[in-house]
Formats: sequence, structure tokens, C-alpha cells
Amino acid sequence: METDHSDKLVILGSGNLAWHLGPALQNAGFTILQVCSRTENSARLLGERLGVEWITDPAGIDEEAGTLVFCISDNAIPDLMCRIELRTRPVLIHTAGSVSLDVFNGIAKESGVLYPLMTFTKDRTLHLQNVPFCIEGSSEYSLALVERMARGISEKIYQINSEERKILHLGGIIASNFSNHMYHLAADFLSARGMDFEILKPLIMETASKIMEMEPAASQTGPASRNDTDVIQDHADLLKDLPELQKIYTFVTDSITNHFNS
Amino acid sequence: METDHSDKLVILGSGNLAWHLGPALQNAGFTILQVCSRTENSARLLGERLGVEWITDPAGIDEEAGTLVFCISDNAIPDLMCRIELRTRPVLIHTAGSVSLDVFNGIAKESGVLYPLMTFTKDRTLHLQNVPFCIEGSSEYSLALVERMARGISEKIYQINSEERKILHLGGIIASNFSNHMYHLAADFLSARGMDFEILKPLIMETASKIMEMEPAASQTGPASRNDTDVIQDHADLLKDLPELQKIYTFVTDSITNHFNS
Repeated sequence: METDHSDKLVILGSGNLAWHLGPALQNAGFTILQVCSRTENSARLLGERLGVEWITDPAGIDEEAGTLVFCISDNAIPDLMCRIELRTRPVLIHTAGSVSLDVFNGIAKESGVLYPLMTFTKDRTLHLQNVPFCIEGSSEYSLALVERMARGISEKIYQINSEERKILHLGGIIASNFSNHMYHLAADFLSARGMDFEILKPLIMETASKIMEMEPAASQTGPASRNDTDVIQDHADLLKDLPELQKIYTFVTDSITNHFNS
Repeated sequence: METDHSDKLVILGSGNLAWHLGPALQNAGFTILQVCSRTENSARLLGERLGVEWITDPAGIDEEAGTLVFCISDNAIPDLMCRIELRTRPVLIHTAGSVSLDVFNGIAKESGVLYPLMTFTKDRTLHLQNVPFCIEGSSEYSLALVERMARGISEKIYQINSEERKILHLGGIIASNFSNHMYHLAADFLSARGMDFEILKPLIMETASKIMEMEPAASQTGPASRNDTDVIQDHADLLKDLPELQKIYTFVTDSITNHFNS
């Protein structure tokens, strides 16, 4: 890999994604010059993890930076961009599912997207080589840059435009955040009844493992898919002192029933 | 293991659970005399799988049967019981999460519950040794019988009463059937937009794997848990031509937001 000005990166942000992506970019042969994050403690921890300078004020961003990689909340990107003034014109790359590449229009000469379709948590080892990376570039040059980043990290690269990326992001939220919320509701419910969530874990793993091989529709079991109204009514009664959970139970059960009986 | 009259079983039902439990009980040293199921084709397939006689009329149940194992829908148990007339008094065992042991009151001298907390699908190999089995017995004798069955199949045995079992069953539905429905909704949404659900699979596996080690609340990511109202509003707009999914999106998002911001 020949070294390029754009291989010198500054990471903006120090959250879950930066925590995983920073070391992966170093492993892929990129040079991280600095970490910049307004949260001092978190900036310091990531700076130490990467062995690089950490700063909290974007005014201190190194003029040598060929590329700025935004690893911050989707809605914080425009605000942070306003606070960056550089004489050089680095490539601007964001990592957000729901933000169009257009966000950089008129600001950067070159821009791109490097979006890993994954849920990131700091305290967890993650093998990024199986994580799907969705890439987009404003030109052949920036597309080649994000592709080189992605290929250095993962085996699953998808060239995806901004509209498609939004669809995937929303699909991911439904499949991941929403199913995790179902785990959360179940854990709270068992805990309120003095029972251990642990006993549900094999079931949860099997449910996720099943759809690696089967369509989710073919994989569905349970009283709602069978329209077993007696059991459904019993459950609604069992939840009568937990009105919020009862509402979710009825709502999701109706949605399942509609999908299997219409 | 000494042989006992109660080790001679008849399996009632030929659905997903019977399909997995039958061979496991044979492996555990029990003798299956017959399979009885009103669905002829399905009875025949399971009979062939187990190498035993299959019948569709409960009047033909072998008088030698020491134990009848009900592997049928929860709400079908009372109806089937009415159609069974035997001079002998076999132990009656059911396998349902939501049915009390009381269902056998006044009918059987001995009864029990052998409830595997798992989602079963015919076309899928399942390693039952990690499946939690919840057991209950009407007497020490029947409890010892279901415990012997469970220990021959799995390493995870829980003695659980009927009330606790209903709680676990409902928790399992929320954690498993409901999260599978979220996969189903995401797959339908991507398919409607011409995109491939395949790309979400690593995310789904990671989401389930995370809570093997972390609390579901600590594991949650995404716009709802951050109360990122701009992204949430964008998503609601993106779903405006899919009113049912938009309703689910708003409803579950509100529930997540309430859990993380109250």
C-alpha cells in the first residue's frame, strides 16, 4: 500500500464506534494523528488506547491531517463541521447510517462515507472482519480511499448510496435495537416477578441463530403466529398490573397475528 | 437405569416439539410405543422417524403405555384428554408453558410437566443438552419420572411450579417471538425497498450475542436510546407509505425512549 496524504487521519469523536474503528484503521495501515472529542475523559482514554495525541478543541486539529473521520452522533455532524477551520482541505468522511453524503456539500472538496452496519459497545471484543461496511464517495478518489479503509478492516464491503444506506440503517434499528428492547422488556418482567432472565438466554440465541438459515417468517413460533386466542388472553390478564408491557404485548401480538392470518 | 412401566411412552402430537423430543427421549433410554396425532401425514412422518407405530385415533392407544406425553397446542390438551379412554391409568405429562399442572386434576393418578423453554422448528438440528427444561410433578413419583426424562436429555433442569412456568413462558414469548417479529418486519421492509436482508444478519447475531454477557439495558444502542429526535423523525417520514410499520416504529421507539429517559 503506497502512503498517501489522505492516509493521515484525525478521528473526531471518542464513542463506541471510534473505540472499535480507531484500532482497526491503525491495523489497516492508516496513521491516526489525533483524537478530537469534546468529552475530555473519553478523548483521553481513546488517545491512550491508540497511542496518539488527544484534544478537545477542533481548533487544535493538525494541519497535516489528510482525512477527518467523523465518529459522532448523526445530528452532531453539521454543528461540529461549523467549528472546524483548516487551511488545508482534508477529505471528510462520516460513519453514520442516516446522514446523506450531501452533508459535506460545499464544505469539502472530497468526501465519503464508511458506515459499519453493526452495534458497537466499548466493553466488548468485536471481530470487524465480518462486519458489513457500506461505502460511498463523492468522487473516484474518495471512493477508493474509503474502499481501501473498508478492505483493510472487513471482508464484507457494499457500495451503497445515501438513500439505500438510510433504508439499511432503519432496517437495522428494527432488527437490532427493537429486538434488544424485547430482551430488555422480558428481563424487566422476569425481574419484577423474582425470576432469572438467565434461563431465557438459550432461547434468545436459538431465535437469532435460526434466521441465519431460515426466513424470519418461516422461523416464527408462539401463540400469536398460531392465533391461539386463549393463551393470548391469559397473557394479557397476567400483565394487568403492568399496563405499559400489556400494551406492548397486545400491540406486537396483533402485528404478528395480522402477518400470519391475513 | 432400571426399566419401569412408566418408561413405555406414547407421544401425543407430531408437531415441532414432538419431532425433537421423540428422538431425545429414545436416546435417553425411554421406549416409545406409538405416536398418535390426528394429522395423518405428520403422524406417519414422526412414526417413521422414531421407527414406531403411528395412529390417528386416540382410541387405539396401546394399553401397555405407562406414560402419555402431550406434545400438542396448549389449548388442545383438554379436548384430547376427553377423547382418551384407557383401563390402565398412565402418567399424563404435558410439555406446555402456559398450561397448569391442574389440567390433569381428577383425570390422572400421576401427572407431570416437562417444558423445554425453546423455540422448535422441524427442519433444524437442535442440541437439546443446552435447552432449559422446566419440570413439575403431582407427586414424588411423577416428579422423579420427569426429572429422569429431563436429565437424559439436557444439562439444565429447573424445578418450576405452574405459576412460575407461565411467567417464564410469557417472558420467552416477549424475548423470542417478539424479537423474531422484529426480524420479520425488517426483512419485509428491506424487501419492499429492493434490498437484501442478508446484510443485517451479522448485526442480528451480535445483538443476541451481546446479551449473553451484558444486561439488555446496557447493551442498547440506536437513536431511541439516545433520544435522537431528528433521526427518529426522519425514520417516521421514511415509513409514511407503510402505515403499519410506521405505527410499530413509533410505538417501540417511544417505549425505548421512556425506558432510557425516565
